[in-house]
Amino acid sequence: MFEARFQTFDDPAERDASAGRLAALRAELKRQNLDGFIVPRADRHQNEYVPPSEERLAWLTGFTGSAGTAIVLADRAVIFVDGRYQLQVRDQVDASLFSVEHLVDNPPDKWLEANLTKEARFGYDPWLHTADGAEKLAKAASAAGATLVPADPNPVLKFAGEPAAGKLARVQAELAKLKADALIVSDPHNVAWTFNIRGCDVAHTPLPLSFASVPREGRASVYIDGRKLSNEVRDYLEALADVREPAAFLGDLKALGAAEKSVRLDSATAADALARTISDAGGTITRAADPITAMKAVKNATEIAGARAAQLRDGAAVANFLAWFDREAPTGKLTEIDAVAALETFRRDTGLLKELSFPTIAGSGPNGAIVHYRVTRATNRTIAPGELFLVDSGAQYEDGTTDITRTIAVGAPTAEMRERFTRVLKGHIAIARAVFPDGTTGAQLDSFARQYLWAAGVDFDHGTGHGVGSYLSVHEGPARLSKLGTTALKRGMILSNEPGYYKAGAFGIRIENLVLVIEAKIEGAEKEMNAFETLTLAPIDTRLIAPALMTADEIAWLDAYHARVAKSLAPLVAADTREWLTAATRPLRA
Amino acid sequence: MFEARFQTFDDPAERDASAGRLAALRAELKRQNLDGFIVPRADRHQNEYVPPSEERLAWLTGFTGSAGTAIVLADRAVIFVDGRYQLQVRDQVDASLFSVEHLVDNPPDKWLEANLTKEARFGYDPWLHTADGAEKLAKAASAAGATLVPADPNPVLKFAGEPAAGKLARVQAELAKLKADALIVSDPHNVAWTFNIRGCDVAHTPLPLSFASVPREGRASVYIDGRKLSNEVRDYLEALADVREPAAFLGDLKALGAAEKSVRLDSATAADALARTISDAGGTITRAADPITAMKAVKNATEIAGARAAQLRDGAAVANFLAWFDREAPTGKLTEIDAVAALETFRRDTGLLKELSFPTIAGSGPNGAIVHYRVTRATNRTIAPGELFLVDSGAQYEDGTTDITRTIAVGAPTAEMRERFTRVLKGHIAIARAVFPDGTTGAQLDSFARQYLWAAGVDFDHGTGHGVGSYLSVHEGPARLSKLGTTALKRGMILSNEPGYYKAGAFGIRIENLVLVIEAKIEGAEKEMNAFETLTLAPIDTRLIAPALMTADEIAWLDAYHARVAKSLAPLVAADTREWLTAATRPLRA
Repeated sequence: MFEARFQTFDDPAERDASAGRLAALRAELKRQNLDGFIVPRADRHQNEYVPPSEERLAWLTGFTGSAGTAIVLADRAVIFVDGRYQLQVRDQVDASLFSVEHLVDNPPDKWLEANLTKEARFGYDPWLHTADGAEKLAKAASAAGATLVPADPNPVLKFAGEPAAGKLARVQAELAKLKADALIVSDPHNVAWTFNIRGCDVAHTPLPLSFASVPREGRASVYIDGRKLSNEVRDYLEALADVREPAAFLGDLKALGAAEKSVRLDSATAADALARTISDAGGTITRAADPITAMKAVKNATEIAGARAAQLRDGAAVANFLAWFDREAPTGKLTEIDAVAALETFRRDTGLLKELSFPTIAGSGPNGAIVHYRVTRATNRTIAPGELFLVDSGAQYEDGTTDITRTIAVGAPTAEMRERFTRVLKGHIAIARAVFPDGTTGAQLDSFARQYLWAAGVDFDHGTGHGVGSYLSVHEGPARLSKLGTTALKRGMILSNEPGYYKAGAFGIRIENLVLVIEAKIEGAEKEMNAFETLTLAPIDTRLIAPALMTADEIAWLDAYHARVAKSLAPLVAADTREWLTAATRPLRA
Repeated sequence: MFEARFQTFDDPAERDASAGRLAALRAELKRQNLDGFIVPRADRHQNEYVPPSEERLAWLTGFTGSAGTAIVLADRAVIFVDGRYQLQVRDQVDASLFSVEHLVDNPPDKWLEANLTKEARFGYDPWLHTADGAEKLAKAASAAGATLVPADPNPVLKFAGEPAAGKLARVQAELAKLKADALIVSDPHNVAWTFNIRGCDVAHTPLPLSFASVPREGRASVYIDGRKLSNEVRDYLEALADVREPAAFLGDLKALGAAEKSVRLDSATAADALARTISDAGGTITRAADPITAMKAVKNATEIAGARAAQLRDGAAVANFLAWFDREAPTGKLTEIDAVAALETFRRDTGLLKELSFPTIAGSGPNGAIVHYRVTRATNRTIAPGELFLVDSGAQYEDGTTDITRTIAVGAPTAEMRERFTRVLKGHIAIARAVFPDGTTGAQLDSFARQYLWAAGVDFDHGTGHGVGSYLSVHEGPARLSKLGTTALKRGMILSNEPGYYKAGAFGIRIENLVLVIEAKIEGAEKEMNAFETLTLAPIDTRLIAPALMTADEIAWLDAYHARVAKSLAPLVAADTREWLTAATRPLRA
């Protein structure tokens, strides 16, 4: 029926990551309009402290031998290993994903000549092949009537909204204020944000693994594996900073230390080796939060516009999923994996899905009560009428990262389910409607989400919300809605609003929308006030609401939200979703 | 009309504290059934670090000379100074309170003989007079047909509810847990709580100035001026601890240090000299909160029963005041000072008032917007129709400390006043109705009180509430309802609930009740939940409510509260208050 490509359902094991990664690679190829790609085993060694990002072949296939190459086409994939590895490759590589060829007997260029279709565009990374090797591949492609195309592994982000040079200038101004000589940026999210670059070195977050060093004055350095950079990206980065190999990083830190510089470094996230190298060489370390973390949390107008566009697109995909689910679930035949695969498919159908923000949490009945449940083939349940189905998922689009949870009644819910759901919803609405002055922290708002559960003697054992990145991590600091959230909420921050309730062994409820901190415009206000704009657009299951527990204000909020959802999504959803959408967004107060 | 004795209205100056202190002394004499008392100038010197509590004559009269004596009768007071001080005494002492006599020409015994009434009971402190001196006084009293009575300056507290020996054992168990050899108790509130003693060394709080040192095992030492102790109190204390003179304190700390003990000391409140003395001598200091502070905050059953009794008594006095105020204020002739004097008089009429918890804040119109306004003769305003009147006051009774704020409409309030008052009230009710799990801090609840003000773009610039002692300080740590309140709220803690709104130059609103943390009994609760029981009993001015802004739940809370106020206070208030009480507590929902 549907197919999940970004997520697998196997119990965790090294080789089992392969299917998801293969799917991710194919999605990227599609985005770059390529019909295939070649992944060689990198032939250089890395120093131990730099990320093992050159192990692309192992990352993709599970194969860890010292020689090999993979070729990925849209409908099949193959791995080439030599005679030494013919047994190992069968242990390490999923044979349902990759066929195995002999690297010497049937080498990649020979295989390509036989297997590429006419007019296919076949990609390669020009930094990972010699000129001779590339020439051989080009000849093979040409013989098949296809074209060899240099791929662009690190596209410069189009949705950043602020040039990297401006961001670097802001960071340097901050360093002057902090009286630090340099900042070591050890968090690759912060490197990605500062330089407006993205990558795909880790699952679910579009990160290029990298470090940076920013002096108070003068040129910054970015430490990134040069083989990941196309000429275009290298030119782009070199206009901003010195582009250095990761192997040079520790040496450069030593030099900083030897020059007796005062260096700021985020001790909560940076490896101890970094601080130690600088201080051993004579530098002074200030262990404090990376100021980029606070800058990155406040989204600019382009990022906010991107977030709204991503939410609209994602909301339509989710609505298509929810409509499909409502049609199919009553049959009592759907499994959790079916639902995950369907949801991913609806998202892929947008044509813009880069990745999932995280493995979809899809828990039916008692599995819904496991807060971070991830379905595997072993735990997969058939979704039965009378149960609740909790689905928490998100998408990475180039213009924004989404994260949404809906809890759906399959068949008739019990009075207890409705009572609990309504209390969770009241808490969700209390956050959505909150108005608060400048300087208010997440800790000061968190209880708003819990008060109606507390009144019933229950609670949920997680924070009410986390920060969310812009086509970056779905869990982004420093702000959060939590009793531990000591960061003041600022306009432009995006956070999740996700209270829940979990009855162990029975059911789980969570209602999650992303919200944006905006100005609250209040007539006669004596001070600056802020509010949340709900970004996420998808119906909340009104069959689970006990209207008698809702106040008039809460009902008004929900009805207004549903009116907005209906109006926004109707033009975007599938034809067979439209009628469902109208019913699902019908106001409580007729 | 009415007279304030515990509070003066002069602009602050050293001599001006005298009237309040004289009133306090007279109240204490009344409590001890004495018609007069003699206050000699203490003839011994104190080390600099011990409190100047022997300066009783200066404390009472303002006179700082090296020789002198005062005698206080119910209707007059006199100070005796020698020839050197005849000019100084007129500068330093308020002649409207004390007449001046010549210490040599007309000495106290001679004056007493001429001025004591027949059968008067005249008190003296047996620790502050020699045997010869006391014999002289006894003869003089006898000649006047009166009796000389040894006074009891430090009555052992009857409302403590836990023997001091038990408290000391708890402190020692805590020291064992903390792996400390000893605890230095520098906060006299904590000494008072531990040993179940009270005194009157400072205004508004029944504190005996003192220190204590509690070893992990063995006998504690309490450092207190022996002249304050009656034989009875000394015997009581000596059964619990070594009673040492304050002059011995530093020497004992040195000895602790020399023995290389690890000593716990509350660095937030203890003088640096204490820590320095111990560590200079070789001891190890742990600077951390005094564990007694946390123990003291949790009231036991006796203290809670005492608090309820004190609140009932105080509520009746406040109701008498409010009824009187409603009768008198419309005349447009009342001043703020009139109101303060009347309120104190109604409280004194209970016969059990020991002190005010703090100088009454009584602000009409724009003065109400000054959060900690204290009326002086210079600022005193006549209360005009169309204004709001804010009165924040409290009483010290032996069974409990009260603190209550009411805001009263004089004449017709404006729509703005009613709108703001209603938002403050909604916040007050949100706290009063809050239910929260174990471990919840005041910071997690504080926003409940502000949310309806925030929604209107306004706020109040103080905490929502503070801890309150049991016949101790009206501001007691460590718990508070504030964004800075990081202490978990525990059952038995008493806090104020006092949101407000202040429009500079126009009016002030505050609604304050004390609340007690209790168990919330909820059917089907999955975890231990807590709630607040409102202790304070007095009508909230319903003329200031805009009912359209209130939810059904809020109205139900207010109506239930008023029903309880009416039922509790009706049997206790004056006859002419009863009808007013019925009207003032009429339900909003008829």
